[in-house]
Amino acid sequence: MQTGQSGTIEIRVRYAECDPMGVAHHSAYAPWFEMGRTELLRSSGGNYRDLEAAGVLLAVVKLSIRYKRPARYDDVLSLETRVANLGHVKIEHEYELRRGDELLATAETTLACIDREGRARPLPASLADPAD
Amino acid sequence: MQTGQSGTIEIRVRYAECDPMGVAHHSAYAPWFEMGRTELLRSSGGNYRDLEAAGVLLAVVKLSIRYKRPARYDDVLSLETRVANLGHVKIEHEYELRRGDELLATAETTLACIDREGRARPLPASLADPAD
Amino acid sequence: MQTGQSGTIEIRVRYAECDPMGVAHHSAYAPWFEMGRTELLRSSGGNYRDLEAAGVLLAVVKLSIRYKRPARYDDVLSLETRVANLGHVKIEHEYELRRGDELLATAETTLACIDREGRARPLPASLADPAD
Amino acid sequence: MQTGQSGTIEIRVRYAECDPMGVAHHSAYAPWFEMGRTELLRSSGGNYRDLEAAGVLLAVVKLSIRYKRPARYDDVLSLETRVANLGHVKIEHEYELRRGDELLATAETTLACIDREGRARPLPASLADPAD
Repeated sequence: MQTGQSGTIEIRVRYAECDPMGVAHHSAYAPWFEMGRTELLRSSGGNYRDLEAAGVLLAVVKLSIRYKRPARYDDVLSLETRVANLGHVKIEHEYELRRGDELLATAETTLACIDREGRARPLPASLADPAD
Repeated sequence: MQTGQSGTIEIRVRYAECDPMGVAHHSAYAPWFEMGRTELLRSSGGNYRDLEAAGVLLAVVKLSIRYKRPARYDDVLSLETRVANLGHVKIEHEYELRRGDELLATAETTLACIDREGRARPLPASLADPAD
Repeated sequence: MQTGQSGTIEIRVRYAECDPMGVAHHSAYAPWFEMGRTELLRSSGGNYRDLEAAGVLLAVVKLSIRYKRPARYDDVLSLETRVANLGHVKIEHEYELRRGDELLATAETTLACIDREGRARPLPASLADPAD
Repeated sequence: MQTGQSGTIEIRVRYAECDPMGVAHHSAYAPWFEMGRTELLRSSGGNYRDLEAAGVLLAVVKLSIRYKRPARYDDVLSLETRVANLGHVKIEHEYELRRGDELLATAETTLACIDREGRARPLPASLADPAD
């Protein structure tokens, strides 16, 4: 992985993700961002499931979302996920969620690399910036 | 635990559990039944978290729900959970979900006791029927 | 729609859908079946969102699932959804969830057609069996 | 409601809210904060369900969470919700989530008052600061 690396996935809004206002509930977005990270890592040859099996866990330590326009049931959204900063223990991602040209939400997360006991540990080689 | 043993919990319907029809989404009920089982076991001196830490897992192998009337956001429901059958490896529970006198839903689940590798194993003493 | 009509969708298991046993939680399946119904209707020219906007609601009144093998994070599953019975007010669907050749779960649902006040009403023409 | 007003609720972590790391998934927290807001409003004599029935909707436009320590299945948490700022159209809340003395997470949300068509509108009297 490298700072600036990005990828885009498509998301079809599920009925179960929508609330009585008829729009995607604000808690539905965090799993979408997680899907964006899963696919971004896959596109660079890595795999979260294998990392986790090897005892390398990535815990979300910070999440921030700005909701600009609602997403509705059955909408097809496009989510761009970008590595904003790649440290020795933490990764920051930025997200832009769109429906066509409309920007629906922006977000940032910070993930910390931990072991099975919850102790901070360096990012594994497959995630670390090759420039480091 | 014993066949016939039962307990009742209160559930306040969360906004995030409701869908665009303005009612609790049908997938929200399974976690409620799980809460019913957790509290029923606690009331008889057991604890699912301790069981799981000891490598005793209970996997839902069957779930059946009949939805009779909708539950709405902010409703206070009462859920009765009853041990319908206690085998050597499996437990069956029955559920009745009410809002006041109104019956909203009935359900049954079957849980199978497995170890960490997913192999069937006998129910632990704390769950087994003392009459056996 | 017609009895016997079926369609298949792909589902990538999300991390947020998995539980401490490391497998998809049993409550995650109901939204997948709902996705199967959404796409089956779309493939026959209909659209649930348009139906709902027109005041035609489909409420799940019965759900039954048998879990045979666990699904894991990042698994790609295939879900076959089939119209098992198309009445005047109700539709029954059957589901088979697979990972490759392995059958992970089977399920049935019954949906009832209701209006915005929750009263039973006939299925709209776009859902009714053309043979009727 | 008034700036500075606060309330505390208890939350029992559900099994379905936990992920393969064995801890509450980071997306589970947003519904907890929503419960905190629901109860805070109730404690001051208001009711979100009634507001919504009257066409007064409160949309989350900003959410920010810092996760400090994990919450585990069956933990009993206490959530303090505080009105941080009460504007004419927006309300900001702050949250502190604890397990006993341990601070697990802090968060802020901003809600905007909208009508059924999604247009900004003033907060209703029951939510507005009486000092205004």
